[in-house]
Amino acid sequence: MSKIDQLNIADRTFSSRLFTGTGKFSSSQVMQQAILASESELVTVALKRVEPGNDDDEMFSSLKNPGISLLPNTSGVRNAKEAVFAAQMAREALETNWVKVEIHPDPKYLLPDPVETLKACEELVKLGFVVMPYIHADPVLCKRLEEVGVQCVMPLGAPIGSNKGLKTLDFLEIIIDQSNVPVIIDAGIGSPSHAAHAMEIGADAVLVNTAIAVSQNPVAIAKAFKMAVEAGRIAYTSKLAPQRSQAQASSPLTQFLYE
Amino acid sequence: MSKIDQLNIADRTFSSRLFTGTGKFSSSQVMQQAILASESELVTVALKRVEPGNDDDEMFSSLKNPGISLLPNTSGVRNAKEAVFAAQMAREALETNWVKVEIHPDPKYLLPDPVETLKACEELVKLGFVVMPYIHADPVLCKRLEEVGVQCVMPLGAPIGSNKGLKTLDFLEIIIDQSNVPVIIDAGIGSPSHAAHAMEIGADAVLVNTAIAVSQNPVAIAKAFKMAVEAGRIAYTSKLAPQRSQAQASSPLTQFLYE
Amino acid sequence: MSKIDQLNIADRTFSSRLFTGTGKFSSSQVMQQAILASESELVTVALKRVEPGNDDDEMFSSLKNPGISLLPNTSGVRNAKEAVFAAQMAREALETNWVKVEIHPDPKYLLPDPVETLKACEELVKLGFVVMPYIHADPVLCKRLEEVGVQCVMPLGAPIGSNKGLKTLDFLEIIIDQSNVPVIIDAGIGSPSHAAHAMEIGADAVLVNTAIAVSQNPVAIAKAFKMAVEAGRIAYTSKLAPQRSQAQASSPLTQFLYE
Amino acid sequence: MSKIDQLNIADRTFSSRLFTGTGKFSSSQVMQQAILASESELVTVALKRVEPGNDDDEMFSSLKNPGISLLPNTSGVRNAKEAVFAAQMAREALETNWVKVEIHPDPKYLLPDPVETLKACEELVKLGFVVMPYIHADPVLCKRLEEVGVQCVMPLGAPIGSNKGLKTLDFLEIIIDQSNVPVIIDAGIGSPSHAAHAMEIGADAVLVNTAIAVSQNPVAIAKAFKMAVEAGRIAYTSKLAPQRSQAQASSPLTQFLYE
Repeated sequence: MSKIDQLNIADRTFSSRLFTGTGKFSSSQVMQQAILASESELVTVALKRVEPGNDDDEMFSSLKNPGISLLPNTSGVRNAKEAVFAAQMAREALETNWVKVEIHPDPKYLLPDPVETLKACEELVKLGFVVMPYIHADPVLCKRLEEVGVQCVMPLGAPIGSNKGLKTLDFLEIIIDQSNVPVIIDAGIGSPSHAAHAMEIGADAVLVNTAIAVSQNPVAIAKAFKMAVEAGRIAYTSKLAPQRSQAQASSPLTQFLYE
Repeated sequence: MSKIDQLNIADRTFSSRLFTGTGKFSSSQVMQQAILASESELVTVALKRVEPGNDDDEMFSSLKNPGISLLPNTSGVRNAKEAVFAAQMAREALETNWVKVEIHPDPKYLLPDPVETLKACEELVKLGFVVMPYIHADPVLCKRLEEVGVQCVMPLGAPIGSNKGLKTLDFLEIIIDQSNVPVIIDAGIGSPSHAAHAMEIGADAVLVNTAIAVSQNPVAIAKAFKMAVEAGRIAYTSKLAPQRSQAQASSPLTQFLYE
Repeated sequence: MSKIDQLNIADRTFSSRLFTGTGKFSSSQVMQQAILASESELVTVALKRVEPGNDDDEMFSSLKNPGISLLPNTSGVRNAKEAVFAAQMAREALETNWVKVEIHPDPKYLLPDPVETLKACEELVKLGFVVMPYIHADPVLCKRLEEVGVQCVMPLGAPIGSNKGLKTLDFLEIIIDQSNVPVIIDAGIGSPSHAAHAMEIGADAVLVNTAIAVSQNPVAIAKAFKMAVEAGRIAYTSKLAPQRSQAQASSPLTQFLYE
Repeated sequence: MSKIDQLNIADRTFSSRLFTGTGKFSSSQVMQQAILASESELVTVALKRVEPGNDDDEMFSSLKNPGISLLPNTSGVRNAKEAVFAAQMAREALETNWVKVEIHPDPKYLLPDPVETLKACEELVKLGFVVMPYIHADPVLCKRLEEVGVQCVMPLGAPIGSNKGLKTLDFLEIIIDQSNVPVIIDAGIGSPSHAAHAMEIGADAVLVNTAIAVSQNPVAIAKAFKMAVEAGRIAYTSKLAPQRSQAQASSPLTQFLYE
């Protein structure tokens, strides 16, 4: 891919369309190596995990890298008020006004709350944040979030941690068709083929955490996701042929032996 | 991937698990560039397309490359007898005893004939060929072909040229589970995500032709397939986590702000 | 099915779990015959279609039947305020406090607005309505609607009119698992097999309109949906066997001839 | 459905398009009641199960019913020779020249052998049998079987006993498109929605055994399958509307309140 195919969110430009996370790794060292292997430039982190004032904090220091930006998320909050408070804490602690809004009141399936998310995003935009909401693959909600000023939308592909892939495909396609902000598919992407698929349908990026962190070899898997994301992006920009219902031979069908 | 993860078929060793074909390209030049971009080491060719005795044959000369082996296929034949004859002609013309057996009497869907294919393979093995049959994703047929001595099986993922991906998934998984010879998924693979998927389930290689040849940018797409195949292979060898029916948070769910 | 397996919504009891609609039929006569063939007891109607004060209104009179209740919907409104107003008009005109809340600001895909729908439902419950919201298959939204007092939830299976079936399956299963009010799958059900599938996973009812109205034989198709809904409900209550990944013979595998 | 929509196989006419089997039931009594509830007119039976000369044989006597024909199957045989022998034994024992050919050498997945099946069918047709082969969903094999004179083809939907439904959909559609003999989908049908789906795509009948026999309530489930098959058949003959990629409102979208 040429340099031209970069992703812009707010005032930043990303060469990598693979965003990652920091949860569930067996150690900070494995996490660090996997993230470096992924070549991800944006890494989401739950505020609780870092203690930024503490220079010894291993996880935090392991992510100090000029090519990597941290994206604090509000995981653990249950409503808009808590999300706004968490974002403000994160801004102070991590010196970034970027925030991934995650509001999931349900502890079993961890699905996001559409109403509280919209409310939180509206307020956070007013407070000067670069707001990236994790949401259900709801096309109308995506448009409403866009209207209140979020910098991207992050619809889910399947329940978080399920590794089931693009179960919301029909709705992701509508979201991508309608969106004026980048669409980043978050949750459910469990294999490189899922990540490639997301890019092939025109997603601007994907966020992958569980599938890398809990694999038997996170560093190798991280690299596989990187390659798959790039492959899927090329397929999208270079325009693959569509599916057909009838066969088309790639070899000639004339009876070549008897002509 | 380390050098150790190579694919062996008969007496050859392949570093690339992406096989390609020569049909449907807009020109020999585009074909040559796309095949080089794919890094494919085995390229199938319909006997009719080459006139090997003719030094001016553009397609044939464009594929002369020390890293690329030609795999003649019997496309166009309707039964075992024709297939055996075509294989013998190809052996003489191209100086190779490798042959991809394709017997599809049906001109509409181009699906392979199981009975004639088994018969042709049995005879070709006896005649000293390295036999690679293109077949339906029929697990019993795959075992029978293995018993008569084919060097690999090439079950289809979907009707040829349909670009629909692994429509035969449930049967491919059985074939891979049972096979003692390499399983190469041939036909139906229409996007890098399909190719990655094939490798993730444990296929030994894939053959892609139409999806590269008829895209708007065959060279870029060929490279995307190469990357996707490698990504899927890494996912398989490094053991991805399985799908889950319940969510699993990657971020901690404790109410971190209020502890 | 015994009489015991009835569906209760608010103060009514339904023997039929197939709800229908009145849109897109070629004539009022065909509509009437199809609805009778469906044995549906609850039929949704856009307020615009009926002019209840006008005794000549053909569509309205054709639905006057002691076994059929009309369910006015708010189709065409764009926000909560319009929905509440429409519901009040419908209550006066049709002498029913039941209302199906449909708020879809998007004229292309007709997908529902989660935020305005929640707001409208909250107010309509306070105003004494029996509220039935048409919504995205969003499990968190369903719980929030339940909390404000709706009498059922009506998540979509696929974009309205698409006839694609249960594209939201993974989320419908979560909704059904968590819900304390009836779950009625609305939109996307395009064939009897889709309707049966919805019932098999435990939906309490389905709403089918387009697939009946635009078929070549609405009366026959309506009856087919009725049978499929009953079949799916029996499968659910009588507990089908689950899917298995390995084969299980239904016939004995001993070599019976040679024992 | 009118009387006209009947299924003809050889010299018989069937009103029911649901064929059943006798395996896996908890008792002969449950089996008998379930088969009666299914209204099936053709019931397959493994030769081993019946001892026709023994008047006390409970299973056999329970199926003596003027509306029910027995269809002996060759389950347990491993090749064509055994199949022909088993068919001849069955003809003598059960006084029927109908036979369902099942040749599955693989004891794990029970998938059929295409080559031995074709060989057995060819010989059995010559011996005067009405031959109904159970096969993989292989369109070319189906045509070859038709050419040797089978009276129908019975492609599988999914591995037997898996209850996974129409996993071979893309190939079943081709088979149905091309076939001049009835197409009966056998194996894999695990729920009424699967059976309805099979009929909707134009299958002539389905064979269901496991899903009925191992359910918690075989009699109720048998009736549910009967209804689903009829519903799916009506959908096929009355021509359902196709799937669409864009929404189509069933209600008018004008802002009716403000006109």
